[in-house]
Parts: sequence; C-alpha cells; structure tokens
Amino acid sequence: MPEPKVGIIMGSQSDWPTMKEAAKILEELGVPFETKIVSAHRTPDRLWAYGKSAAERGLKAIVAGAGGAAHLPGMVASKTRVPVIGVPVQTRALSGVDSLYSIVQMPKGFPVATMAIGAAGAANGGLMAAAILANEDPALAERLEAWRAALSASIPDAPEDIEE
Amino acid sequence: MPEPKVGIIMGSQSDWPTMKEAAKILEELGVPFETKIVSAHRTPDRLWAYGKSAAERGLKAIVAGAGGAAHLPGMVASKTRVPVIGVPVQTRALSGVDSLYSIVQMPKGFPVATMAIGAAGAANGGLMAAAILANEDPALAERLEAWRAALSASIPDAPEDIEE
Amino acid sequence: MPEPKVGIIMGSQSDWPTMKEAAKILEELGVPFETKIVSAHRTPDRLWAYGKSAAERGLKAIVAGAGGAAHLPGMVASKTRVPVIGVPVQTRALSGVDSLYSIVQMPKGFPVATMAIGAAGAANGGLMAAAILANEDPALAERLEAWRAALSASIPDAPEDIEE
Amino acid sequence: MPEPKVGIIMGSQSDWPTMKEAAKILEELGVPFETKIVSAHRTPDRLWAYGKSAAERGLKAIVAGAGGAAHLPGMVASKTRVPVIGVPVQTRALSGVDSLYSIVQMPKGFPVATMAIGAAGAANGGLMAAAILANEDPALAERLEAWRAALSASIPDAPEDIEE
Amino acid sequence: MPEPKVGIIMGSQSDWPTMKEAAKILEELGVPFETKIVSAHRTPDRLWAYGKSAAERGLKAIVAGAGGAAHLPGMVASKTRVPVIGVPVQTRALSGVDSLYSIVQMPKGFPVATMAIGAAGAANGGLMAAAILANEDPALAERLEAWRAALSASIPDAPEDIEE
Amino acid sequence: MPEPKVGIIMGSQSDWPTMKEAAKILEELGVPFETKIVSAHRTPDRLWAYGKSAAERGLKAIVAGAGGAAHLPGMVASKTRVPVIGVPVQTRALSGVDSLYSIVQMPKGFPVATMAIGAAGAANGGLMAAAILANEDPALAERLEAWRAALSASIPDAPEDIEE
Amino acid sequence: MPEPKVGIIMGSQSDWPTMKEAAKILEELGVPFETKIVSAHRTPDRLWAYGKSAAERGLKAIVAGAGGAAHLPGMVASKTRVPVIGVPVQTRALSGVDSLYSIVQMPKGFPVATMAIGAAGAANGGLMAAAILANEDPALAERLEAWRAALSASIPDAPEDIEE
Amino acid sequence: MPEPKVGIIMGSQSDWPTMKEAAKILEELGVPFETKIVSAHRTPDRLWAYGKSAAERGLKAIVAGAGGAAHLPGMVASKTRVPVIGVPVQTRALSGVDSLYSIVQMPKGFPVATMAIGAAGAANGGLMAAAILANEDPALAERLEAWRAALSASIPDAPEDIEE
Repeated sequence: MPEPKVGIIMGSQSDWPTMKEAAKILEELGVPFETKIVSAHRTPDRLWAYGKSAAERGLKAIVAGAGGAAHLPGMVASKTRVPVIGVPVQTRALSGVDSLYSIVQMPKGFPVATMAIGAAGAANGGLMAAAILANEDPALAERLEAWRAALSASIPDAPEDIEE
Repeated sequence: MPEPKVGIIMGSQSDWPTMKEAAKILEELGVPFETKIVSAHRTPDRLWAYGKSAAERGLKAIVAGAGGAAHLPGMVASKTRVPVIGVPVQTRALSGVDSLYSIVQMPKGFPVATMAIGAAGAANGGLMAAAILANEDPALAERLEAWRAALSASIPDAPEDIEE
Repeated sequence: MPEPKVGIIMGSQSDWPTMKEAAKILEELGVPFETKIVSAHRTPDRLWAYGKSAAERGLKAIVAGAGGAAHLPGMVASKTRVPVIGVPVQTRALSGVDSLYSIVQMPKGFPVATMAIGAAGAANGGLMAAAILANEDPALAERLEAWRAALSASIPDAPEDIEE
Repeated sequence: MPEPKVGIIMGSQSDWPTMKEAAKILEELGVPFETKIVSAHRTPDRLWAYGKSAAERGLKAIVAGAGGAAHLPGMVASKTRVPVIGVPVQTRALSGVDSLYSIVQMPKGFPVATMAIGAAGAANGGLMAAAILANEDPALAERLEAWRAALSASIPDAPEDIEE
Repeated sequence: MPEPKVGIIMGSQSDWPTMKEAAKILEELGVPFETKIVSAHRTPDRLWAYGKSAAERGLKAIVAGAGGAAHLPGMVASKTRVPVIGVPVQTRALSGVDSLYSIVQMPKGFPVATMAIGAAGAANGGLMAAAILANEDPALAERLEAWRAALSASIPDAPEDIEE
Repeated sequence: MPEPKVGIIMGSQSDWPTMKEAAKILEELGVPFETKIVSAHRTPDRLWAYGKSAAERGLKAIVAGAGGAAHLPGMVASKTRVPVIGVPVQTRALSGVDSLYSIVQMPKGFPVATMAIGAAGAANGGLMAAAILANEDPALAERLEAWRAALSASIPDAPEDIEE
Repeated sequence: MPEPKVGIIMGSQSDWPTMKEAAKILEELGVPFETKIVSAHRTPDRLWAYGKSAAERGLKAIVAGAGGAAHLPGMVASKTRVPVIGVPVQTRALSGVDSLYSIVQMPKGFPVATMAIGAAGAANGGLMAAAILANEDPALAERLEAWRAALSASIPDAPEDIEE
Repeated sequence: MPEPKVGIIMGSQSDWPTMKEAAKILEELGVPFETKIVSAHRTPDRLWAYGKSAAERGLKAIVAGAGGAAHLPGMVASKTRVPVIGVPVQTRALSGVDSLYSIVQMPKGFPVATMAIGAAGAANGGLMAAAILANEDPALAERLEAWRAALSASIPDAPEDIEE
C-alpha cells in the first residue's frame, strides 16, 4: 500500500459525513491518503504529534475539517510547513459562519487554505490537495484535468423538469 | 512579591492596549498577576507549557486575549482545568466578530468564559478573575463590592452637556 | 442534602432542554446545585431577590440561560459579585445571535462569562462552574481532570462509517 | 413648571449626545419631559424605582437609550405599563447591532417600541412619545402635524451641488 | 359594536398567522380593533387611504406587519400621525433580518415602533397598542396590569422535565 | 433640450454625493435625464405623482437611491411599470446593509433592479439605465460599447507603486 | 416560433426550481424566451460564447440565476451590453447571502440588476425583463399593466383563518 | 532572470497596497514571481488567456486578490488546474465580507484556497504559495522553516508599554 500523501483530519466523528467528500475525491483521483480524528481541544497532544511529523512522513497536504470555534486547521498549520487546507463544517446555530471565521482569519505567518462551508468545501479540499500534488505529478495532473473535463461535460445544455 | 494568582496572556504585543485594561483592574483590586505574550500559532510550545503548568503554579484564572482566528483562549483551555476567560480583540475588517466567534463557540468540554469585544471586555476579564478569587477571599470580596459600589455611585443623576 | 454551590437559572421553562445539560454535568461531577426559573422581565423581583442573596447563600457560581433579548445573566450580574456564567439559548429567527450579543456585550463593571450558543454552551456552563469550584476543592479538581481525560480518551483514532 | 409627561433615560452620560436629539424634539413640540441617567447594571435600584413610579408620576411614555448589551429599555418595560420606546445607541465594535438586538428582541409580554440605531432613532423616540400624547391632546396633535408638514416642505425639488 | 381603536394591518394573507397574535391580545384585553390587508406595493392606494383617514376615524394605534422589503409600516407612518407599531415577519432566506432593517431603520421624522421578529413581536404589538390606550383609560390600564401580573404568576419556580 | 429619458431620484439631498455618479455616467453617454428629490416618507404625494406619470412622460428607466429603511425604489416601482433601478446608499451604523435589504428583498410583482452599495452602485445605475435604452438605440449602444472598451483599455498590465 | 428576446440562464440544474419562476412569468406575459444552463466555472467557454452573441442574437435581457460564489451574472455582464438581471439562489449554509453579495456588489462598469433571494426574485427577474421590453412594446406594456392590476385586485380586504 | 513560479494577480491597481504583501513574502523567500492586473470584468479575455496558459508557463500557484463581487480567483480557477489562492480585499461598505463570500463559497470542482481579508491574507497567500513549492524544493522548505522560526523568535516574552 502506498504511503499516504494527503492527511484528512477532523475534529470529531460527527465531521466525517462532511469530510468523507474529500476522501471520495482523492479515491477517484488515485491519491493515497489517510484519515484521522485529531481534536484540537480534546486531543491536543495528538495534534502536536501529527503536525510535527507531517513533513517527514511525506505528507504534501493536510485537509482539516472542524466546526464552531474551529481551531484544528490553524493549530496544525502552526506546527508544520505542509500546506493545510481548512474545511469549515456547518454548525447548528451559526450555520458554519463561526467555523469559517475561525479558520480563514489566520494571522500573518500561518495560512490556512480555506474552502467553502460544508460538503462542497470538503470535496474541494480533496481537489486542492490533488492540484498541489499535480504540480509535480504529470499523471495525476492528467487525471485531474480529465476529472474537470468530465464535470464540465456532465452539464446539460438546458434545465429539465425532473421529479425530485 | 506575591505569587501571581491570575495570568494575563495575549496573542501579540498589539493586543496589549486592549489587555492592559485587565491589568489595571487587577491592580486596583490588589490581585497579584503576571502578563505574558503567548501566541497560539507563533509560539505554540510556549502555549503548551503555559497551560500545562498553570494549575500547579497556583493560577486561579487566566485572562486570554486574541483577535481574528483567535485560538489562544480555547487552546489554553484544552491544556488546563484553570478557568480561562477569553477577550475578543477588535479587528480591522470584521470588528472582532471573528474573534468573538473563534473564542465563544467552543465545543462541549472546554469552556472559555467569553467577555465583550475590546477594552471593556478586557476590564471585565479582570473583574471576572477577581470575582472567582473573591469566592474564597473575603477581603478581596469586600474590595470588589466596594469597587462596584463606587462605580454605581459615580453615575450622575442626569446627563449634562459636557464639552467632549 | 448538601447546600447548593451552583445556581442554574433560566428565563423560562422552554430553556430547560438546553439548560439541563448544565445540570447533567454538575451531577456527573458531584457538585451540588439548584435549578430555578427566574425571568428578568416576568419575575424581576424574583431576579432581584435571587441576585441579592446569592453570595450569602453560599453560591460560588450562577449559570444563567436566556434567549432573545437575554437580560437575565447581565441583570443577575448587576446584583451579585458571584461569578455569572451566561448561556445564549438558540432562537427561532436569529439562531441565538440575539441571545449572544445581549449576554456577551456587557459594559465595564459587570462581566458575564459567556458560553457557546445552545446545549454545548450549557454543558460548558456546568464545566466552568465546576472549574471555579475546583480551584479550592482538590477532590473536585481531580474529578474534573478525570472527566476531561475520559473525554479525550473517548475520541477514536479514525472516523468510521456509522449508520446514523 | 409643568409636570413631565415623558421620561428620557439613558444608561450613561456617554449616551447623551445621542439622546439629546429626543430632548430637542420634545422641546420643539412643547412636551414637558425629564432626563435622567438610569443604568440597568450600575444603578439597578434606581431603575426599579423609576419603573415602579412612572405611571403614578404621570409619565405617558419613556424614551430609553442604551448601547451594547442594552438592558435598560427592556428592564424598565418589565416594571411599568407605561409605553417604553427604546433607542439603540451605536457601539464601537458592533455598530449598534448588539444594542438593536438587545432592545428589539423582547419576549411576549414586554414590548419595547424600538427606534433606528443612533441619533435619528433618538429624534424619532421623541416624535413617537409626542404621537402617543397627541392621541389625547388636540393642540399637540396640531403641532405635530405642523412639524411634519414643515419637514416635508423643507425638501427641495432637486439636489444641488452644495459645498460640504 | 364599538368603533375600532386599533388597526391591525398586514402586507398579505400569509402574514396573518403571525399577526393574529396581535388580534388575540387585543381581544383578551377588550380593545376594539379592525384587521385589514394593506399591501404597500400591491395596493398602494389602499395604503394611502388608510393612512390618511386613520386619525379622523379614531384609531389610536396601528399595528402593521410585513416581511422582506417591509415598506408597509413606514409608509403608513408617513401618512398619519397615529402611532405605528411595526412587526417584522420572519422570512425564508433572511429570517426576518430584512424585515427588521426595513422597518426599524426609519429616517428622522417618521418613527415606527418596532417589535421583535415574528409571533412574539406581533403579540407585543398588541400589548404596545393597549399600553398606549391605557394611558387614558384606567379600566384598560387595570386589565393590562392584571394581564401582566397573570403572566408573571404563571412562571413556575423551577423547570420540569415535561414531555414535549 | 431633449426630454429626459431617465429619472434620477433620491430620498434626500444627502444622497446626492452618491447619486451624482449616476448623473455623470448618463452625461458621458449622452442620455438625457432629470434629477429630483423624492422622499418616500417626507414627500409621499410627490412620490405618488412621480410614479404615476413616469411612463407617460416618456421615462424608460428610473434610478432611485435611498438609505436606511430605503422605501423609495420599491414604492416607486409599485406605481409604475417603468424599470426601477435601486441604489442602496451607505449608512452610518449599518454600512448600507439596511439599505440593501430594504431595496432588494421586494416581493413578487414589483422588482427593483438593485445595484451595489454606494457610489459604484450609483454609477452602475446609470450604466444599467443606458443599457436598457441601448436595446433600441444603436447609436447609444455603440457609445456604451465604446465606454466599456475604454474602461477595459484603461487597465494597466501590472500594478505600480503609486504615491497615494 | 418567435426568436427569444430573453435568455434565462442558470449555473446548474439545481437552480431550475428557482429559475422556472422567471420562465412562468414570461410565459404568462407572452414574451419569447430561451432557457440554458451556463456554468461560470464548469462551462466558462459556453458562458463566453453566450455573452458574446447575446446582443446580435437579439436578446434584450438576460435573467441569470446562481448560488454561492455566484459568478455567472457578473461574468455574463462583462461580455455583453445586454442588461443582465441577477437572481441570487438560496444556499444551504448561508441562505443566499453569499449569492446576493457575489451578484450585487459588482464594480463600476458592469451592473447586474439584482433581484431578491430565491423564487420571488426569479419571478421578479421575469417581470423586470418584461418591463424592459415593454418600454418599446405597447401591447406588452398593456399586458404587464394588466398583470399588475390583477395582482392588486387579488388582494382580499381582510385576512382570513385559512386551513394551511 | 528565473521564470516565475507564482503569479500574483489582482482585479485593479487599487488592490496593490494589499497584494504587495504577497510579493514581499515571495521576495523574502526567494521565490520568483510575476505581478499582473487581471480584471475578471474589465479584461475577461486577459483572464482567459492567463488561466489557460498558467500550467504550461510553469506556474505552480496563483495568488489572486479581488474585492466586492470578487470573481477573479474563482474564474481563474475555472480555467487552470494550477492551485489558486484567493485574497479577499477589504471593501468600503461591507469590509470585505462580500469579497470573502464571493471567493470562498466556490462550488464543487473549483476550489479557491481562501486567505484572511486584507493585508495579512495577502502575506499568507505568499506563504501558502511558498509552502506548495516547498513540498518539492528542500532549500525553499528550509528557508520557509527559517522564516517561521524567525517569526516565532521575534515574539517577546511579555507585552510592553510602547509609544504608538
């Protein structure tokens, strides 16, 4: 089994229905990845260890999802130079605006590549990770271009009255 | 010099004009405290060490101020059972709503006692720390009651046309 | 039966499904508490009496939940030096942003230790009350540390595809 | 000097630059009024006394201005059946949205007649108080109609390039 | 049948489930009222006529509910000196924040006494109308005080685990 | 002098610094227009008359600017079938979000073509009016295309360090 | 079959339940139109081609609906001088505020005539397109006036307790 | 001169004071880059050409800044598989929330790695671009680690009362 090139991490099991969209994309594109629950608040030492070892373990991108006071993406970013992609998970009261602000408003020095709130954002997290890898992997670049072309080709010319 | 009972920490030097209001209050109330810059992202190991040693060093409250993706209060709270009081520092683009959401929306398990945005919130952070200590310190309780009584007494009966 | 050390109050019966999370935590941690409906607007005199007697009755923290124009936590805070912890209850139209702003934006002099919106915030209100008491109660401090350790230990290593 | 029919109250001296607009309007319309600083948090007993005596003292409307966690209008409304008109004072961090939500989102039973944020809202608070009184005071009704007619008449037909 | 003293108007039939709360309150308090659909945009001439005749028809308050770009309350207020109470109806996309801003942010000269978003706001619209009338109607004032006392008396002492 | 084809109206003189941007554009494009102050609240009858006569007077578009509870664009739209273009004027407390919501959230039946908040929106109001007229005026269409081409041509290739 | 005068375009099939309201209106008013899916991101070349040919194909208005980072209306507007009417589609996390801001906040030079969020906005998009055409088509102008009159006539005088 | 590996593009000259922070970082880190003004609306063909040629020209990341209805980052992302990093430029009325939503809320398929609003976000855009390149460039990785270490080392231990 190939070594993972992308880490998909999330603050809790409840983020998985969102974050699995990132996993699906990486599977479709043939990018080896790992998934892990790393809670900034409940398992801070796991977060520390994860961040510190990311580069030497060969990770080229980390897709980190979290909701509410979403500290996971930013805290991992403080521990590694590996690009961190943040996915704001939708929340009950504030719909993910809290997650978005907590992830995107990082201070100078520690960028988090923030995606859209929710499942589309998680899928895009996978695509962004793939795009980073594709820079140096022509075969993946081709698969990514093909994935994009297929998406474009799937758009019908006109809307239809489909039963929902 | 007495051991500090309250730690005032902040993410950067630029938070000090806000956070010094907490220091002023503790000075007025005669509560020994320390001040420290602890950046969640730039000095995460300092944060770790601070959180881990807080209880054994005798701190009874930590007043933590930060702005933007304000992870400091919540991350300290994940490392210590000492009550953490969070002060959202006002920010340029989002006026501190980003700070507020990043601090207050903590998940179950790791409360941060969040104050108002800005200087009033920092002053109140000092007062909340004092109120916690006053539970077991009758003399401080008295000084706190006196401080509150003086504040109330300072309110004039009617507004006046003062030159601003 | 031991005297209550924490008061859990709320503006109306409809806040109980949220606020019972605070009660559950205090039960788990063995902290004696009382629950009471105290409406800032409908029973202001009850609020007055509650606030005025809190310290002498031995309360060390008050967890106050309210929604909308949520005046209860702040008004109690104006009547007692006992630390008041505010829980913004989620609301129908504004999702609790109204509750949050009404609770957290207190003026200098009268802090309310504001928690997250909704049930997680209520649970954290209980934990914050316990943390305050734990400062002077080594046995409780130990139980609180154990509660936190158990929470951390409950986090699985990787997400799973659970039937929801 | 005639007995005041309208009370203009505010949480602090710093609200006066806003609230004096209410006073100006009542002066223009010849409505006797009083002004008073009544802080919900700093002088809660003054608030209690004010609310309890309002009806018997002959007040027909209370214009209450406050900022931030603006509890004054709603708390007065809980103590008197006299119509309370709330003016959200603009705030530094949240521009008065906090004041607005804290004033307008009152629960069933205790309405506060909320005006616009800031000085225009304060002026309108004076006009609303006058409109309430005008219901039973034909001379005042006439003055109010004239005030409104003059306002309408003051609108030029076309905009001009005025030096600002 | 007594002449109506309060007009309850609304922009469309779909506002009635909200606005009937105002009608219920006025019925409970024995205040004669009328209900009418007056759309600012669809029936502007009806709005004109309604506003112009309000004072001479003996109305002492108008409770106007509307949603979205809610122009009804403000436009009626521009046509009559009778106090206009505005009720922001909750909306699908913006939850009534659009309604609230469109109603409350009136310019100097034309106040609208704005209530909370939704049904509680409508009920409070009825109560505010009654409070205005109660200024000059001691019997109504007594009924209003009794209504408020009954509301306060209905609050239980402690929350209960009720089946929902 | 040619008959005006576009009406630029605004709620008050204070909107002119914003709305003159619409006038400038129409001047540049050679479209005859008129300017007028029409306040929804202060001069409702003027608004009525303006709306009712717009079509027969030959207006092909109305650019209406207003701030706060910005009722002007929508109310004019309720009185005429001539396309109404709304410009939300920036406001002090709410930055024009109140204006935007009050203008754009019109109910089915009465569209207002809403532009961006502030001066850019006013300029665009002029351009939208011109685009409507250009549909049937080839010479204007050409001038509009040229205006757009010139705008595009004015963009430098790379940013420069200009003294501000 | 007559040549289409209005183009209804949308970013994806999922926008059709919203955008069909525009189609319904144009059918009711007898305005020939076409419908097309044109995704700014997935089919940018289709967007380019659509925009470039719009004027010469005789389109007099384009109603463009999109959600989230809604770039379609603005990008079409950058490619054609034909008036573009934007419909913000409601979104899951941000309720369409993201769509609204992405559509309405266009820079000087490229107006998009923005409608309300959701289905009412789409219907209004159809009406705005018709109003533009009605400027030069007296028969359509009459049909539009009749449509508006019928809408007004459909408003009952008073609300009724209808079973929902 | 080495070929640029990163493209810094922006919607207008007025974005340069923000976006130059990205340039500064890349200079500090020794990453070759180019700067260009590419307006989504004013120079859409330039955008097309830029996007289409990015990969073959050897760009490994594009840092795109824009304000308001900020379509540039997303539209470039639709034309290239090269990772696009978006910087929301602060705006006058909406403080950059419009820019943020327009950039971050991209649909599935076309991620934009969104940074914080304003200058800190632009600097972080440079750092994110460097982090992407550092994946395959050990010397750059070392310089980046050193940059981060220097940033951390620059944090003083305690705040000081500095003259501002």
